[in-house]
Amino acid sequence: MTVKSTGTSAGGDGAARKAGRASRMIATEEACSIPEVAERLGQLSRSTWDSLDIKLVGSIYNAPPDDPNPLLPQLLDIGAGRLETMDESGVDMHLLSLTAPGVQMFDADTAAALATLANDRLAEAVTAHPTRFAALATCAPQDPRRAVREMERAVGTLGMHGFMINSHTGNEYLDQQKYWPILEAAEALNAPIYIHPRAPSDGMAAPFRDYRLDAAVWGYGIEVGTHAVRLMMSGVLDRFENLKIVLGHMGEAVPFWLWRLDYMGRPGRQGRTQKLRASEYFARNFAITTSGVEDPLALRYCIDRIGVDSIMWAIDHPYQPTPPAAEWIHAAPLTDEEREKICHGNAERIFGIEAVSA
Amino acid sequence: MTVKSTGTSAGGDGAARKAGRASRMIATEEACSIPEVAERLGQLSRSTWDSLDIKLVGSIYNAPPDDPNPLLPQLLDIGAGRLETMDESGVDMHLLSLTAPGVQMFDADTAAALATLANDRLAEAVTAHPTRFAALATCAPQDPRRAVREMERAVGTLGMHGFMINSHTGNEYLDQQKYWPILEAAEALNAPIYIHPRAPSDGMAAPFRDYRLDAAVWGYGIEVGTHAVRLMMSGVLDRFENLKIVLGHMGEAVPFWLWRLDYMGRPGRQGRTQKLRASEYFARNFAITTSGVEDPLALRYCIDRIGVDSIMWAIDHPYQPTPPAAEWIHAAPLTDEEREKICHGNAERIFGIEAVSA
Repeated sequence: MTVKSTGTSAGGDGAARKAGRASRMIATEEACSIPEVAERLGQLSRSTWDSLDIKLVGSIYNAPPDDPNPLLPQLLDIGAGRLETMDESGVDMHLLSLTAPGVQMFDADTAAALATLANDRLAEAVTAHPTRFAALATCAPQDPRRAVREMERAVGTLGMHGFMINSHTGNEYLDQQKYWPILEAAEALNAPIYIHPRAPSDGMAAPFRDYRLDAAVWGYGIEVGTHAVRLMMSGVLDRFENLKIVLGHMGEAVPFWLWRLDYMGRPGRQGRTQKLRASEYFARNFAITTSGVEDPLALRYCIDRIGVDSIMWAIDHPYQPTPPAAEWIHAAPLTDEEREKICHGNAERIFGIEAVSA
Repeated sequence: MTVKSTGTSAGGDGAARKAGRASRMIATEEACSIPEVAERLGQLSRSTWDSLDIKLVGSIYNAPPDDPNPLLPQLLDIGAGRLETMDESGVDMHLLSLTAPGVQMFDADTAAALATLANDRLAEAVTAHPTRFAALATCAPQDPRRAVREMERAVGTLGMHGFMINSHTGNEYLDQQKYWPILEAAEALNAPIYIHPRAPSDGMAAPFRDYRLDAAVWGYGIEVGTHAVRLMMSGVLDRFENLKIVLGHMGEAVPFWLWRLDYMGRPGRQGRTQKLRASEYFARNFAITTSGVEDPLALRYCIDRIGVDSIMWAIDHPYQPTPPAAEWIHAAPLTDEEREKICHGNAERIFGIEAVSA
């Protein structure tokens, strides 16, 4: 696709168009798996469950033998092959996370056991390559109290940097009161919850069953955007003022909607009882990553709309190839300061990843 | 909400920031109603139908007597009061349309009869004030062949400028083959179809039932955005290459998603058989209006992404107040040429509205 010339505000024409490289490249939404989870998901995909996630799960964990670009080996590689891919494009660090749908399609006991196992495995990978990997913990919201104990272990014992939750759990969203302990724990641990996509929940699945709209092309963004708007409009963020939520895919288009969310969803309108406007929640409680949206215009819009301090670079490995994901952010019309913040500074601050001296 | 300083590409800093006024102001998504439709919708709202539209319909057509800002009188006024509101803000013309959900919640016979009546009434208003009003025809997709006859009458006999379809009809979208005659007729008549929101269809309604997410705050955009993506990804636009679809609300965020739609929805990927990428369909088959999104940053993003020739100004009267809707476009950082195109030139070309000599 041809991206038109933009002429943005990034520090004058000359500086703006200069291709540059940040001093450190931390990629913040990098997917992996472990054999035990992959095997269980493969089994699920050989069921008659009509969850919208099953198509994608099957295409990965039950892939045909002649798949020209199998994803599973890349997901399972948390070592040499991954590091080589990173090295080829000058990527310093992957912030690893168990890929969608995580453990959220399993029963509570299976999910909790697999979350613990995945967290141990990811922590081992980080221990083996502490300058190259950091990790988000897998969360099993099915049993919120047990999830909280694992969240505390993941941060306190394993040194993980936040939590990955793949949107809905059993068609329920995190604004529901039963999940508040998870929000409370994340806030208390000062560790963000990254809300990653999975396919739209059953109650909104129908129009996404045609033309393969279930996944990244469209359904993913609708699912997570709706989740984020529920968190804002429910008022639940009034209880957890310091909770940080991270959205991928350039904020799942929520930044683009902020004017309308503010106007139509303002406190008091139609009896709305939440305290703040959407843009105020977004500024206080949210950050975004660039995963899967390698569009300099969308990036500039988000910098101007929500501020450069809330934006982090991500590749979305292995779902997006690494070289173009690195090249576009090198070439994006950014000031040097903006590029440093987006490529590593914000991730160090938001996820508590140790900075390196130049 | 505070909009941050943008520093856009609009022809240099001085020109960009100069507040200006276009020589003509045509507002392109301006809602009205007629008593017969209003009465029927009021009756529907006193039913036990759990369609997500019923809440909003009730709040308008069955409003409490103490409603501080009743919308119905403003919708029914297609004369003096509306003209006064327009005059106060220097609005030259309303492109009128029967407000959502149009006649699309009625049985086929009722819908067809009310569409004909609404089209006659709107044509009368245009005849009474031909320099101040133009109109889009109401469409009753329930009976596609009958709808085609009314479309031909609306353009050929009544001189209307396109068609208003309020997204789904009975939970079905326009990509379905039964609706192709409507797309074919619009293309043959060289008259756009404006896809206006209504609440999400039953099959995607569940997450929108909480926190009043059903309507303009969030559900509307999801419903129409999904409709637009279905039209692109189904391949139906390969059959109707000259069909023009208009989306309100800054394109319902579809422009913001084009990079990801192109990448994840490219022809051939996962067996996709449509001929073009989303951005190619968007450039060829779509135009957008600014209704309800008075955000100069979103406007600049869209100009840079899809081109200024595809963007038209709209107020969304009476759902948005007219003075700020006029003031923001006057003050937006645009070149004079961009402002003339957005405020009237594009509407004249896309909807076939007669230009006036300066």
